[in-house]
Amino acid sequence: MPELRVIEVAREMREASRELARAGRSVGFVPTLGALHEGHLSLVRRARAENDAVVASIYVNPTQFGEGEDFERYPRSLEKDLDLLRGEDADIAFCPANAEMYPPNHSTFVEVGYLSNKLCGLSRPGHFRGVATVCAKLFHLVRPTRAYFGRKDAQQALLLRRMVRDLLLDLEIVVCPIVREADGLAISSRNANLSPEERAQATCLSCALEAAREALAAGETDAMQLIEIMAQRVISEPAAELDYAAIVDPEDLEDVREVDRECLAALAVWFGSTRLIDNATLGRAEKG
Amino acid sequence: MPELRVIEVAREMREASRELARAGRSVGFVPTLGALHEGHLSLVRRARAENDAVVASIYVNPTQFGEGEDFERYPRSLEKDLDLLRGEDADIAFCPANAEMYPPNHSTFVEVGYLSNKLCGLSRPGHFRGVATVCAKLFHLVRPTRAYFGRKDAQQALLLRRMVRDLLLDLEIVVCPIVREADGLAISSRNANLSPEERAQATCLSCALEAAREALAAGETDAMQLIEIMAQRVISEPAAELDYAAIVDPEDLEDVREVDRECLAALAVWFGSTRLIDNATLGRAEKG
Repeated sequence: MPELRVIEVAREMREASRELARAGRSVGFVPTLGALHEGHLSLVRRARAENDAVVASIYVNPTQFGEGEDFERYPRSLEKDLDLLRGEDADIAFCPANAEMYPPNHSTFVEVGYLSNKLCGLSRPGHFRGVATVCAKLFHLVRPTRAYFGRKDAQQALLLRRMVRDLLLDLEIVVCPIVREADGLAISSRNANLSPEERAQATCLSCALEAAREALAAGETDAMQLIEIMAQRVISEPAAELDYAAIVDPEDLEDVREVDRECLAALAVWFGSTRLIDNATLGRAEKG
Repeated sequence: MPELRVIEVAREMREASRELARAGRSVGFVPTLGALHEGHLSLVRRARAENDAVVASIYVNPTQFGEGEDFERYPRSLEKDLDLLRGEDADIAFCPANAEMYPPNHSTFVEVGYLSNKLCGLSRPGHFRGVATVCAKLFHLVRPTRAYFGRKDAQQALLLRRMVRDLLLDLEIVVCPIVREADGLAISSRNANLSPEERAQATCLSCALEAAREALAAGETDAMQLIEIMAQRVISEPAAELDYAAIVDPEDLEDVREVDRECLAALAVWFGSTRLIDNATLGRAEKG
């Protein structure tokens, strides 16, 4: 098995990035909260295929969790994560402590603006500010050529692309397909927090998206009707509580009235204290 | 005279930075609003002495000017600026248009937090947000090893050091001494906007700082008394209108009661629609 270098100190990560830059090597970067699963590993494989060096970060970033959210109980499995990264031939695992990422009295945040106040941003105030800020920091330390994100977090990917464009960061955001369990559930670290009953009912997200797709194929293009179809499918499961169901423009996330072009259907659903999200493209053949 | 490369396009600046990084050359960066004067040139000389390559930017950044401020009438003298940079053996002048720095529908800003709401931040809401944001963008494009700023803008330098530390940017902020005219007036591009009468009276800023210094040397350590001495000296000039006079901690810019250690005395004064600032260290021998 190839050697995985585990770095815990920001200064050391910076020095490693400088060496990679001096050597002219392209760097593929996969930022994660750890609790790695097949979704993350698909990103690492893509990074491995497209770059000279692969860096993954494992860091449960406190500033993207709101008060009362699941920061404390977010799944953590560092040793297993490192083994998985070794299995994918990653070069560096960057696993910083909080003090490395947030110096004492830190006060600087990156605000990406209006996309932050839509969909998940409404349910999770401050979440995207935390995501943008920690990604800016990680990008500064790792200096990736390309950074890989999953399309399950579609809003996050859009927001980070906007940040990279607006702040003139020298990297490409690569967005990769959602990886699903055999029954359709989008793979997520938070799935581990579901009870067996909740896990069985959690397929309602992907089923709701599929129902919207089928209704569209049958000729229903009214967004409100399609949203209602998704909502009904979700709440047909007794443990599911709908946070939002939306059909929006895939670039600016504004609500649409009519699915007469490519749109994004997005869902967030509570199962007890676990919040799951999923999304799908409507109005064209699914890519990837 | 050596060749100065003039770059107007962000993409081209990025490519030049990549080449410098690949060549392992250190980069000294002097960001300016143009209208270059001896203060700027002292920064360019320092950058030249300490780095393999020197980049200066000339860009009047709209987001750091508030409504009703002097964005439109800020002095501009591009051809003369380029000649001055040639005279100092700078390698690259980066002179972007607004569309290069702010893409359509840009929405991302860097907020450095509490230092933004003190001293000049109170008089110029949004100013430091604009400064931090444009500097982050310029740092991303230019990738400097060191960036040089004048101590006349002491708050700006502190704020950018905080930003670099908090966002884990890989560069050093170097702060250089204030350059003054023979009569003590701190050199500033805005001095060009003063009428002859205002220009004559504008020495009241440096005289007020000197008066505070002398009073301290004579045993007055009460900050309120020293501020009063500065204020009286400023308003003794009929064209001068005091914006603020303050004595603060040199790191967190909090007001101090007693000058029993190193402090920063800072002034902002209006002459008509022109606002001048100056500052000095109190409580130890002046450095540089």
